[in-house]
Amino acid sequence: MPAVSVVGYSHRAATRAKARRLAIATEVAEELSDAVCDTDLIILATPIFTFAKYFADLNRLVRRGCIVTDVGSTKMLPHRWAREQLTDEALYIGSHPIAGSEQRGIEFARDDLFVDAHCILTTTQDVNRSALGTLRRFWSDLGCYVETMSPAEHDRILANVSHLPHVIAAGLVNASDPRDMKSAGKGFLDSTRIASGPADIWTDVLLANTNNIVAGIDRVLAELSAMRQALKSEDRQTIHALLEEARSKRAALVKYKIRKKELLS
Amino acid sequence: MPAVSVVGYSHRAATRAKARRLAIATEVAEELSDAVCDTDLIILATPIFTFAKYFADLNRLVRRGCIVTDVGSTKMLPHRWAREQLTDEALYIGSHPIAGSEQRGIEFARDDLFVDAHCILTTTQDVNRSALGTLRRFWSDLGCYVETMSPAEHDRILANVSHLPHVIAAGLVNASDPRDMKSAGKGFLDSTRIASGPADIWTDVLLANTNNIVAGIDRVLAELSAMRQALKSEDRQTIHALLEEARSKRAALVKYKIRKKELLS
Repeated sequence: MPAVSVVGYSHRAATRAKARRLAIATEVAEELSDAVCDTDLIILATPIFTFAKYFADLNRLVRRGCIVTDVGSTKMLPHRWAREQLTDEALYIGSHPIAGSEQRGIEFARDDLFVDAHCILTTTQDVNRSALGTLRRFWSDLGCYVETMSPAEHDRILANVSHLPHVIAAGLVNASDPRDMKSAGKGFLDSTRIASGPADIWTDVLLANTNNIVAGIDRVLAELSAMRQALKSEDRQTIHALLEEARSKRAALVKYKIRKKELLS
Repeated sequence: MPAVSVVGYSHRAATRAKARRLAIATEVAEELSDAVCDTDLIILATPIFTFAKYFADLNRLVRRGCIVTDVGSTKMLPHRWAREQLTDEALYIGSHPIAGSEQRGIEFARDDLFVDAHCILTTTQDVNRSALGTLRRFWSDLGCYVETMSPAEHDRILANVSHLPHVIAAGLVNASDPRDMKSAGKGFLDSTRIASGPADIWTDVLLANTNNIVAGIDRVLAELSAMRQALKSEDRQTIHALLEEARSKRAALVKYKIRKKELLS
């Protein structure tokens, strides 16, 4: 990657101070305007429902042709807000590098976070091809496997592989008695890890993708009802078929992820 | 731990050969009778619904006062079968060391599997105190934190922290389109890991604990329905409250597990 200058900005003074202390960026700006006035690429990493306001501010501040992207977990609303607010020819393309953990804050930053990660770029028909090439190269150079799709397709898929699992994990924890949970093993801990994610960030994610998530919940409710019925009637064959279907589907997924180097073999 | 002689036995010739090749035991017996006739402690590690038959066989083979235990995931049925079959004064006590992974086979054996693991012993009112002391010492010496409870209490708790999460993970995988799953990140993979467990073993586990698991499914269905309703009505406050409840409950669990050394800080 060519030499780049990374300018950080947060609306919180404490976060700016921490970013300076941890030397997380080339420079940390005190004002949004100083951070963005002379830049080629702006990456928003704030809760989704702050984007509309940021886009409006950026529209006044950035130079023409500046690429604006984000790392939010849904894309339909950001694209709509970008269309409404970024009217002076800043170029918006959505980014979703699928990496990170349930932990929050720049103290959890890692140099290798994006190595062999899957990164989805979202574009609309009027996308600027040159800007798309630049953004694709940016994420590739960080180590990502980059894929492009529409915002609607992104939100449908991410509901299924990320937002729905979060809802399920939270539901499982909330259905559990804290005294019983003390006997939990690694299985329970792993299957509920994502429920430890920050509630405010995830409230935004869920609210930005309600239709797709509700559809996913309905599919899970149907699966759980089928298993419930099989258990009630002690139907060994159906129970085995449901468990084996899940086992073999996940085995195929693990094999794919190992091939893509997203998982170690 | 005093010098012990570990005798292995499997009904499968291939497994016996593999056990010899991996030197997993002091000795591997060709016949069940050779494995158990002169032993102080027998540990069954087979699917739950094979126990009744094994208990009947062992009853003819073992010497009086021999301790019989198992590492099965439910305990009410094993205690019932032991009461019915182990009539010649072999002493049955249930063991459930909460350790291991979704992987199966002696090639996944690990010397340190039980270090800092939680181990539940299940007993009834007529338990032989001396045998219980011996079994407790056995698991403690392997590194376990040992707790004793009734079979009914064990099955209720394990339904909630192990069997129900397995059903949920399988349901989530089965509700997912394999093409969408290719975009899954670490969150989806972790939250569904247990669904990779062997379907035959888990069919036995679920069938041996249907009432408790159905009650758990009903609680999860209620939680998912509450979240579904909140999403449909874009009720930010309720969505946030549900996510924050799960986050804080799990944070308390992680804190407890770190204190117990079951998790690294």
